[in-house]
Amino acid sequence: MAALQADDPLSRAFAEARAAAARDEAPIGAAVMRDGVVIASAGNRTRELNDPTAHAEMLAIRAACAALGAERLVGCDLYVTLEPCAMCAAAISFARIRRLYYSAPDAKGGAVESGPRFYAQPTCHHAPEVYAGLRESEAAELLRAFFSGKR
Amino acid sequence: MAALQADDPLSRAFAEARAAAARDEAPIGAAVMRDGVVIASAGNRTRELNDPTAHAEMLAIRAACAALGAERLVGCDLYVTLEPCAMCAAAISFARIRRLYYSAPDAKGGAVESGPRFYAQPTCHHAPEVYAGLRESEAAELLRAFFSGKR
Repeated sequence: MAALQADDPLSRAFAEARAAAARDEAPIGAAVMRDGVVIASAGNRTRELNDPTAHAEMLAIRAACAALGAERLVGCDLYVTLEPCAMCAAAISFARIRRLYYSAPDAKGGAVESGPRFYAQPTCHHAPEVYAGLRESEAAELLRAFFSGKR
Repeated sequence: MAALQADDPLSRAFAEARAAAARDEAPIGAAVMRDGVVIASAGNRTRELNDPTAHAEMLAIRAACAALGAERLVGCDLYVTLEPCAMCAAAISFARIRRLYYSAPDAKGGAVESGPRFYAQPTCHHAPEVYAGLRESEAAELLRAFFSGKR
């Protein structure tokens, strides 16, 4: 079982989300997979890095680009525990991510099925295939527990 | 004259745009000003850094946050030579930039007056005051000259 899960990218994203919560960051995680191998993963680090752009998806994309020495992640898929915001949705497009898998929708800040629906805009030049709702309740519970602990 | 221009943020942004062109990057530059002082500036470095998120605005915001040791750029204004894309527009919002000044509109990839019009979305939680069209023809000519040289 453990071996089977080793390169399960969504489990890696969830592990990153839990590690982010342990650092007192919003519990969101992301992983980039290419050819069945996770080549980068990250959790949110906006507070630690004093960087409002340090969302999980952004850090995972930048790490994947660094690993491949390329500006475009052709043939790569991104897994993330929450619907990406407009910043991340656009970065996913610029990076030419092939498929985007995400867990929970984010009606307040998402930009895929919510708000600006970035991939549906005529100004979006590359849209990934989108698969939503994987382990949705688990991701939603992680966020709920984290933010209820804050209040 | 030179002294007067020293902290003219839009001239700094244009200088960054020209420096980007000299590096064979898209000629776009940005500068962050607080209390009359430019605290960070950057040009596009997506190719050099193999990083699709390395737009001028993103690098300038990250540098300003690093300079201030803060995740939010309260009281800061951003100057950029081109209308920000969705990624940068959202990052500007997350960073709590007070005023956004930009030169040329970008009908193909912009997200302020074009495309998703990010700041007009109900999911946008902080919108800067926006001032567009400063030295517009100069910025448009810089882009036109760069991309015509590519063809």
